[in-house]
Amino acid sequence: MFYNLIAKIDEKFHFPVVSAHCDIPCKIYDPISAQLAVLTIIRMVDLLDELKAKDTLTLDEQAQFLRLVDQKEKHGLKVKAEVNVIWGDYIKAPQLDAYPELHELVHNIMLATSQAKQHISKAASLKLLTLVNRFAEIFWTTKGVETFVAACPYPPTQPLIYPKLA
Amino acid sequence: MFYNLIAKIDEKFHFPVVSAHCDIPCKIYDPISAQLAVLTIIRMVDLLDELKAKDTLTLDEQAQFLRLVDQKEKHGLKVKAEVNVIWGDYIKAPQLDAYPELHELVHNIMLATSQAKQHISKAASLKLLTLVNRFAEIFWTTKGVETFVAACPYPPTQPLIYPKLA
Amino acid sequence: MFYNLIAKIDEKFHFPVVSAHCDIPCKIYDPISAQLAVLTIIRMVDLLDELKAKDTLTLDEQAQFLRLVDQKEKHGLKVKAEVNVIWGDYIKAPQLDAYPELHELVHNIMLATSQAKQHISKAASLKLLTLVNRFAEIFWTTKGVETFVAACPYPPTQPLIYPKLA
Amino acid sequence: MFYNLIAKIDEKFHFPVVSAHCDIPCKIYDPISAQLAVLTIIRMVDLLDELKAKDTLTLDEQAQFLRLVDQKEKHGLKVKAEVNVIWGDYIKAPQLDAYPELHELVHNIMLATSQAKQHISKAASLKLLTLVNRFAEIFWTTKGVETFVAACPYPPTQPLIYPKLA
Amino acid sequence: MFYNLIAKIDEKFHFPVVSAHCDIPCKIYDPISAQLAVLTIIRMVDLLDELKAKDTLTLDEQAQFLRLVDQKEKHGLKVKAEVNVIWGDYIKAPQLDAYPELHELVHNIMLATSQAKQHISKAASLKLLTLVNRFAEIFWTTKGVETFVAACPYPPTQPLIYPKLA
Amino acid sequence: MFYNLIAKIDEKFHFPVVSAHCDIPCKIYDPISAQLAVLTIIRMVDLLDELKAKDTLTLDEQAQFLRLVDQKEKHGLKVKAEVNVIWGDYIKAPQLDAYPELHELVHNIMLATSQAKQHISKAASLKLLTLVNRFAEIFWTTKGVETFVAACPYPPTQPLIYPKLA
Repeated sequence: MFYNLIAKIDEKFHFPVVSAHCDIPCKIYDPISAQLAVLTIIRMVDLLDELKAKDTLTLDEQAQFLRLVDQKEKHGLKVKAEVNVIWGDYIKAPQLDAYPELHELVHNIMLATSQAKQHISKAASLKLLTLVNRFAEIFWTTKGVETFVAACPYPPTQPLIYPKLA
Repeated sequence: MFYNLIAKIDEKFHFPVVSAHCDIPCKIYDPISAQLAVLTIIRMVDLLDELKAKDTLTLDEQAQFLRLVDQKEKHGLKVKAEVNVIWGDYIKAPQLDAYPELHELVHNIMLATSQAKQHISKAASLKLLTLVNRFAEIFWTTKGVETFVAACPYPPTQPLIYPKLA
Repeated sequence: MFYNLIAKIDEKFHFPVVSAHCDIPCKIYDPISAQLAVLTIIRMVDLLDELKAKDTLTLDEQAQFLRLVDQKEKHGLKVKAEVNVIWGDYIKAPQLDAYPELHELVHNIMLATSQAKQHISKAASLKLLTLVNRFAEIFWTTKGVETFVAACPYPPTQPLIYPKLA
Repeated sequence: MFYNLIAKIDEKFHFPVVSAHCDIPCKIYDPISAQLAVLTIIRMVDLLDELKAKDTLTLDEQAQFLRLVDQKEKHGLKVKAEVNVIWGDYIKAPQLDAYPELHELVHNIMLATSQAKQHISKAASLKLLTLVNRFAEIFWTTKGVETFVAACPYPPTQPLIYPKLA
Repeated sequence: MFYNLIAKIDEKFHFPVVSAHCDIPCKIYDPISAQLAVLTIIRMVDLLDELKAKDTLTLDEQAQFLRLVDQKEKHGLKVKAEVNVIWGDYIKAPQLDAYPELHELVHNIMLATSQAKQHISKAASLKLLTLVNRFAEIFWTTKGVETFVAACPYPPTQPLIYPKLA
Repeated sequence: MFYNLIAKIDEKFHFPVVSAHCDIPCKIYDPISAQLAVLTIIRMVDLLDELKAKDTLTLDEQAQFLRLVDQKEKHGLKVKAEVNVIWGDYIKAPQLDAYPELHELVHNIMLATSQAKQHISKAASLKLLTLVNRFAEIFWTTKGVETFVAACPYPPTQPLIYPKLA
């Protein structure tokens, strides 16, 4: 409607009708959100293992068990969603040419997240972290940003890929 | 905890301790949910084009414009989510071996959905339908189910891939 | 505002002011979404019954128990929501005149879904399926579309009402 | 599993196995949530009408228009959801026998909410309030609680049905 | 864009360009939503205590345990969200001057809600109710509305702060 | 139930009943999530200003306007939610004693976010960033982690407070 109205006005009053290519709203892409979600899964597993070590659980502790499993599940969904946003919105032909491993890596992240959701397993969640860190490393490199590894500044104290900030 | 308790009881009373492989909760996978979301996008574009054809819009019609754009956006997100669930949860090595096109097809669905979200374009949404129909076709074939094409029984009357039901 | 502006311009320049009846954004109505949600409930009950048959559960299996109950709950909410959308948005006087049973049927679906949510019961979920299938049958008939019954092409292999596609 | 384990222990050690009827988790039902949602719709319409009265809108005001339409939409969905919870979870045969108008009233609330969502209309939203107030009145009466009418203590200053508190 | 277009038209045709202060969309603030959420937490604890009193739980009752803990959790999040909306959107300098206790009270509500979420404790949830009632009392007083205390008209029959309606 | 059962078994068989203090599930707290949300708001404002500079908007560009305003709104809600989680879950007496400014700072973040939501204003969003950066700085200091300032590695290239990683 607006275009037609403007066109009509234009016919009469010669306002310039500028049509322009519409830019993609730039959501800020940063793999830290996916990395934080994996760290939370690892943390939940550590707390679940503490409960596992007890002979008996009070009712509060059983409720705690539920809450930890539920948080692990939710953060698994978050890992998948965050990685899919970067892969589905940002990764295009240039990045795929530079890193042909990308589709398979992302798919493996999906499978590894399912494993981490379905099992209370430190190994499964650490494997997921390795894959997500690799994805982060590729992401930053495609952006021309160098990376380094450091332990994250909170439990679980695990190595993360970080961008080298200017 | 439960395992330890059972182990202790077992020591004393010899109940069988059965450990079993935990099955994946089977969410029912069906590409129809993704296909319905694409049809909704197409329908929204058709209604937006009707508004586009008017010289002027009343305030109600401008609110309608908003609501249509918002629904188009939401259903775009739904297409991505539904396809990602099948690709990330169900598609594994056997399906990838049989259909090496899968990763690229799914990635192209992501890109095509972004296009359909960012533009009011019948062409973009029809292209998305083509890709999602191809994905549905592969899905059913990996399940050993034959498919056929038929027009969906509501506007927009577009061709969909359907499973041949026994 | 826009209308006033257009009215002012119109006074001066006689552009036609067209007011038109605003169309309902057509969400595509299809009972398959509700039917899929019921099938998922049935599937969850089957998997829960498998766990019920074990003497003991490992910690992973207890977490599995949680996840199955949670999915059953979520899909119960989805059944209610999907049926309510069709009943609340689409069903009007003509359909009610043709099928006076509709209000009571939909209300019974709500009650049956509550039962299926609150109990791990194959019977309760199968009863829900019967009601939702009846709702689907009425829906298609009001649309002038013939229906037929077929087993859905995945576990749980249950009969569903499907539209006969041209 | 737990039942079987207990049964086995019971066989040996004769602990009482108590099976009990599982109570419905009592969500607190109160129609005030639905009533608040209708009041918000009315408030949004009033603010939209203020914008409608202007000759021109700054860009901030156009964004405001969007935000008001979006809130009106969201609160329409909330009205439907809140009424459906009470109708679908709480209303049963005794209430239906006492108030045979209930199914039709609830369905009319669904239709009236759709109207209020699709149009910027004070009349449509006031009509919705009348229906929701009637629903609230029936609800409280089925609970054996007397009601009274009072203006709500904030804009829009509209009459609401309130329960007479002891 | 619209402003520029209007400015251009204005230059030529002298329509008044009115710029106005944009009003805050008035969401209706009412502490009853937070109060209802606390009552639900208390109700969940009462039902959980009933389960706690049993020697054994059937599988349905264990699922019930899960659903009650989950609802308690969700309503804890709702208490926080509802209180934060009023505190973050409505409370400003005048109210803070009149009630310097407000920031600390709201922060204590956050801490008390965490306690109520993490434990199955009647005491913790009643303490939360006391704090939320105080918040409601302050809210109404800042609005110039008198309050009174009455038992809410459903289980759990707890005292709530209510506004005195004209 | 489990506790009672264990107690009964204990009476007979003297298994140790261990009751332990239940730990808080450690969600990983990191202000980066709030900081990312503010950056997105700033980015949306920049893109909205680009549209503002055009004389006319095509229909696609008007839809773009909607999508940008909607994203700005959503990320405003995210800023509030993320800051409230850290303030409501993590900040306790020791941190409040060390930083008495905290309650007022958090409340000002709420007010500043409302401003950034209600206006398309670079100034309002930059002010919000200053406040959120200050909150991040305090957070890291309470954790015993040094901070530094660097430009974030993507548009909008704004200074962020970062933790000095070992």
